[in-house]
Amino acid sequence: MNYYRPVVRLAFMGYGHVARETIKLLHEKAASLPFSPAIAGIYTRKLGYRWVPGKAFFPHEIVQELPPARRVQGGPHKFIERVQADVVIELTHPNIDERGEPAAGYIRTALETGKHVVTANKGPIAFHYAELLNLARKHRRLLRFESTVADGLPIFNLVRYSLPLTRIGRVRGLLNSTANYVLSRMAAGVPQMRAVAEARAAGIAEADFQLDLDGWDSAIKCMVLANVLWQPIELENITRDAFDQRAQEIIARAAASGGKPQQVVTLTRSENGDVHAAVRLQVTPPGDPFYSLSGYDLGLILETDTMGNLFLVEQSPGLRQTAFGVLADLVDIYLRGIAPQREPTLFDADPEQSATLTDDA
Amino acid sequence: MNYYRPVVRLAFMGYGHVARETIKLLHEKAASLPFSPAIAGIYTRKLGYRWVPGKAFFPHEIVQELPPARRVQGGPHKFIERVQADVVIELTHPNIDERGEPAAGYIRTALETGKHVVTANKGPIAFHYAELLNLARKHRRLLRFESTVADGLPIFNLVRYSLPLTRIGRVRGLLNSTANYVLSRMAAGVPQMRAVAEARAAGIAEADFQLDLDGWDSAIKCMVLANVLWQPIELENITRDAFDQRAQEIIARAAASGGKPQQVVTLTRSENGDVHAAVRLQVTPPGDPFYSLSGYDLGLILETDTMGNLFLVEQSPGLRQTAFGVLADLVDIYLRGIAPQREPTLFDADPEQSATLTDDA
Repeated sequence: MNYYRPVVRLAFMGYGHVARETIKLLHEKAASLPFSPAIAGIYTRKLGYRWVPGKAFFPHEIVQELPPARRVQGGPHKFIERVQADVVIELTHPNIDERGEPAAGYIRTALETGKHVVTANKGPIAFHYAELLNLARKHRRLLRFESTVADGLPIFNLVRYSLPLTRIGRVRGLLNSTANYVLSRMAAGVPQMRAVAEARAAGIAEADFQLDLDGWDSAIKCMVLANVLWQPIELENITRDAFDQRAQEIIARAAASGGKPQQVVTLTRSENGDVHAAVRLQVTPPGDPFYSLSGYDLGLILETDTMGNLFLVEQSPGLRQTAFGVLADLVDIYLRGIAPQREPTLFDADPEQSATLTDDA
Repeated sequence: MNYYRPVVRLAFMGYGHVARETIKLLHEKAASLPFSPAIAGIYTRKLGYRWVPGKAFFPHEIVQELPPARRVQGGPHKFIERVQADVVIELTHPNIDERGEPAAGYIRTALETGKHVVTANKGPIAFHYAELLNLARKHRRLLRFESTVADGLPIFNLVRYSLPLTRIGRVRGLLNSTANYVLSRMAAGVPQMRAVAEARAAGIAEADFQLDLDGWDSAIKCMVLANVLWQPIELENITRDAFDQRAQEIIARAAASGGKPQQVVTLTRSENGDVHAAVRLQVTPPGDPFYSLSGYDLGLILETDTMGNLFLVEQSPGLRQTAFGVLADLVDIYLRGIAPQREPTLFDADPEQSATLTDDA
């Protein structure tokens, strides 16, 4: 156990389900965090700016009651500039139509004013990754985004820390719970709209579920994966199957062949470095690893030159998993971006010597 | 690309298939390694000590020809003391009968004389983990062992770096390729000894294949997992099914029920902290994630309090995967144990800024 725990001040942009779950998880894990989180401010579209300049709140206080609303002259950017935070946690809407704005702008302002950034927001990482990463490096701040693809499934942290020197040649994924749940229910004879209603009741479907079914959500995740693993790909260049045109056909073909109808993402990098991506409705045969996925399961296969094929599955994803991704990013930023500035060498901060691997609390 | 790459000197204990494959992989990945590996010495039971005091060899030289043999007064411990290496790579035999000796002793001597250690050897980590970890801490050196369970499947690196604050309550695994391959072939009507011969021809089976079939190999891996994730468990307390007594029965039951006969490892930690482990021959029903595994596939399900169930699969494991685990450990030791002593802050050594995530070489 650490007896001395530095305070890390957080500002939240957005206060929806993910932000609430993140604050709950921070509260739940308070005893084993290597730092003491304090919430310096919250910007919420519906409830205004929630902060008291110069004061920060501990997670349990926020869980009980939001701080009072304050008017901020100059809007969200002025708030990000002024709030005394070490890390901005950006959880506003992806806004595909606006190519990740205004969220990307929030991240820019945060990095430019010396804050590290965690985002669970696909939009900015899909449309502005290279620019934001350069900005982060310029200001010597860290940008983390584990929850943008498959909730908190540790894809980027795995590639970053556990697959050194590895070339990934191809990625296949089931990245959208709603599309695959609806397909499986329709295959079982449930009408499409009832299946969508079930996914909504489970808190899984996007507000506009057609973004899930028609592969827009998965295509945006393709962009994030391509950006981070390889190089950018344009949304217009990602092949997508329209749900209404193709779902019935693949459900019938699946029934005839003993396979499963699924929405499958495929990203490949060819020898010359070109990246191709597609989100297809297709029949998965029984021998395929994805055949074992059901319900809301998400999965990813990384085809590597060092480890062969690596198959990761998140069984029954949900809000808690997304919040965990945010928390994992926050811990990573603490260990790599905040602790080393305060401690003489990182050798002392080896997580093996912290609560991580030997947590008995 | 890094233009300045510090030399990291390696000594190999053992020069079997894994060591050769590791040196090949070091050679193959030379251009993207953050350091320049130099081999300061090799101890091999069959070929003696291969070193030239004061000189180190680059991997491509070793690939071509071993250094000349030298007699070392005092045996392997004297060699480990005297060899001028930053990291000892311990790849000798697990030696279950001797409870991980003499390999554990090699690791002790290496740590005591200021070397970091990578091992792919289950024995020392199964029988002496707590002691070796304490010794490493005392001497401010790192001990890494990713390849001891499921080859290079990044289990320990995942837990260490990507699952912070996470409690693992249960682990299920298919951890022995030979046992599961033989069961699947016997279920397809192939005689046991022919299936074993196939596994041997593929380079998968242990020299004494009965250690695979009777669950000894998996039980040792249970000990490693329990040691690292929780607390030690004694080999005598791990339930094992004897292959010859039970294989035919579960193959028949699997055929009758549409399931698969598999050797499944289960580790649980109860509320009061007790650890239970078992290696059972059992029938896996079609709904179970392990049902999707076939051939030599290995898999692991971590039941966590943060991410739900996380399912990792290594498709078609082999020597290259084991060597990759050794290499990943070596990179981790470099980034955490060697680079920070040389560079002002670890912020500069953020792997995101190295070749890892943006490798275009």
